[in-house]
Amino acid sequence: MSISRHVKQMMQESSWIRKMFEQGILLKKQHGQDKVFDFSLGNPIMEPPPEFVRALEKVVHDTTTGMHRYMPNAGYMTTRAVVAERLAAETGLPFTAHHVLMSCGAGGGLNVILKTLLDPGDEVAIFEPYFPEYPFYVSNASGTTVVVPTTENFELDLEALDRRITARTKVVLYNSPNNPTGVVYSEESLRELGALLDRKQRELGRSIYLISDDPYKRIVYGGARVLPVFDFYRNGIEVYSHSKDLGLAGERIGFVAVHPEADDLDDVVAGMTLSNRILGFINAPAMMQHVLREIADVTVDIDAYERKRDLLYGALVDMGYEVVAPGGAFYLFPKTLLEDDVEFVNQLQQRLVLTVPGRGFGRPGHMRISYCVDDATIEKALPIFEQVAREFVSA
Amino acid sequence: MSISRHVKQMMQESSWIRKMFEQGILLKKQHGQDKVFDFSLGNPIMEPPPEFVRALEKVVHDTTTGMHRYMPNAGYMTTRAVVAERLAAETGLPFTAHHVLMSCGAGGGLNVILKTLLDPGDEVAIFEPYFPEYPFYVSNASGTTVVVPTTENFELDLEALDRRITARTKVVLYNSPNNPTGVVYSEESLRELGALLDRKQRELGRSIYLISDDPYKRIVYGGARVLPVFDFYRNGIEVYSHSKDLGLAGERIGFVAVHPEADDLDDVVAGMTLSNRILGFINAPAMMQHVLREIADVTVDIDAYERKRDLLYGALVDMGYEVVAPGGAFYLFPKTLLEDDVEFVNQLQQRLVLTVPGRGFGRPGHMRISYCVDDATIEKALPIFEQVAREFVSA
Repeated sequence: MSISRHVKQMMQESSWIRKMFEQGILLKKQHGQDKVFDFSLGNPIMEPPPEFVRALEKVVHDTTTGMHRYMPNAGYMTTRAVVAERLAAETGLPFTAHHVLMSCGAGGGLNVILKTLLDPGDEVAIFEPYFPEYPFYVSNASGTTVVVPTTENFELDLEALDRRITARTKVVLYNSPNNPTGVVYSEESLRELGALLDRKQRELGRSIYLISDDPYKRIVYGGARVLPVFDFYRNGIEVYSHSKDLGLAGERIGFVAVHPEADDLDDVVAGMTLSNRILGFINAPAMMQHVLREIADVTVDIDAYERKRDLLYGALVDMGYEVVAPGGAFYLFPKTLLEDDVEFVNQLQQRLVLTVPGRGFGRPGHMRISYCVDDATIEKALPIFEQVAREFVSA
Repeated sequence: MSISRHVKQMMQESSWIRKMFEQGILLKKQHGQDKVFDFSLGNPIMEPPPEFVRALEKVVHDTTTGMHRYMPNAGYMTTRAVVAERLAAETGLPFTAHHVLMSCGAGGGLNVILKTLLDPGDEVAIFEPYFPEYPFYVSNASGTTVVVPTTENFELDLEALDRRITARTKVVLYNSPNNPTGVVYSEESLRELGALLDRKQRELGRSIYLISDDPYKRIVYGGARVLPVFDFYRNGIEVYSHSKDLGLAGERIGFVAVHPEADDLDDVVAGMTLSNRILGFINAPAMMQHVLREIADVTVDIDAYERKRDLLYGALVDMGYEVVAPGGAFYLFPKTLLEDDVEFVNQLQQRLVLTVPGRGFGRPGHMRISYCVDDATIEKALPIFEQVAREFVSA
């Protein structure tokens, strides 16, 4: 074998997902793109808002020299200052550009902060069901992933976390609104999480960083607010992406922000700046950093996502699916009507509806339905969800 | 200590470079930006060519939906096909989109291919003097760097390479035109390199991949042509970046191409596609991939770099500096006039000329002069180089 054994193993372990994905492509070829209803991807269909296009035009016609060159390894000071100003307004904390590093989306930001913090064997606790890339990111940085269960409704189970924190725990990583469940953790449970980690830090005599993976922070419904990690934990780190809130998933723009009073702040910031460079990102794309200075407060139409949620969630519940009501993001994570989630997802696929089995997220017996799709896709798929429900609920 | 011990150690080891860099910033503040002559950075000052701006305008006003979304993890098929077509024309080999992966510049591309190929302890041979990030990239992928000397004129020393290839050698990595020397390896020595590796593969019964880090491939002088790695080695891989040839260092666009007949081709390609995603790049920025389809054949004005080289190289030789004549890139790597290169670079810095000591590239007793600067900087710095030469050549 010529390639890395580890990479080969990862490829084999995820081969069933690839087969499912390829089967979906095949179905689209056989039946036509518009006859297959694809709820399997987290690729937002909302186009970037008009403010983005205007800001981009401005950048393209800006004749200042050096707009496309290398910048400082943490990103443009001016862009970092805009992000910091916004974080300061949100939290009341004295954020400055020093506390912010621009990154190639949240995926890039997570790799950078994990590389900066972890030594081989250091443990990173994540909550199941989880975004399937987390264990890969942890492994890239030579860390060990520790999976912590959540409750049946996907709320934090702090007793379970308590039992899994060890002298090797360096990072706890969470994601709210959550992919794949859409659940927004309550303010109360987050404050308890902060108190638990404070106690553990004292007991163990070492720093535990709490990373909030926040790409869906602004995609919340019913006027809810996501409590920033900085509001309840001093060793808090936010990793953000504009993939979802500005519809820029392909343009790779996000940031990492560190609490102004975090332990070893200067080392964390200097370490991230080094890691950003040596991991090969160097930095987030220059043009997107220029654009972001102009539109840091803009988002796509969140109401449209809320309407899609209402449409799909309400209908699935009426049909007899057990679904936890999601407070944000654009995912539903219902129980499958067969215990074997892969088999159930296959049944849907045979009827041209594509979803992802829960076991891909560490929670079998469920499936992820991603509703960042157009309304017509939802409307046309509903009768199929219903037909399958009638077949298997009665079974 | 809170951050990774390894990252902390890397920070400490490179702290003298940072201090030197900070000293340069301080000097610019004290004396004024235009009184300090900075030859220390590889940040091209050429603005992107007008074709870039026109292509970008077209992309900005393109109303096709989905232009900024996630794309397939290896990049847009259409962009990969354009790159492949060009490689096929260059080499006569049957390149298709399948053999090409779009990457966040060469730094991203190198991290992706090393992650794909290396198991812990696998060795990567590099030639000294070398780009200082190479050992970091190798270490990111859990590999071990083996440094191979070159001749006094920075030509490949194949006997030295022969002695350093072991049963753990997985990759040999070279860079021509070279950073920091500007040397372009001759066709003859590259063909001998290919023959040596072919023999080693047979002897050791395993694949050795030869990676050509090619960001300067199109910045060559006197009508010279850089022999593509594909012309002389079947397990050849090219890593390319448009940072230099299009002046887009900040926009993070490049690619990795694998020889159509390389060992385990499909695994290499699938592994890179996975690595691109899980390392957090996901992909090269979407807009740059759209732009690249339009301007794959365009470069900045190479003649301007050649004029700068002629101006600076000629003058330094006249002053008594020992310099190997560079055939490409925008670097000179003269011997320092004191054995202690750091001390000599400090002497220049005190006279407001900034360069980088050779030991940063694994070759003490030299300094790197980067001439991707405007002509005025070169002209004003020449008397200072001369004054220092008079002082230390006679000493």
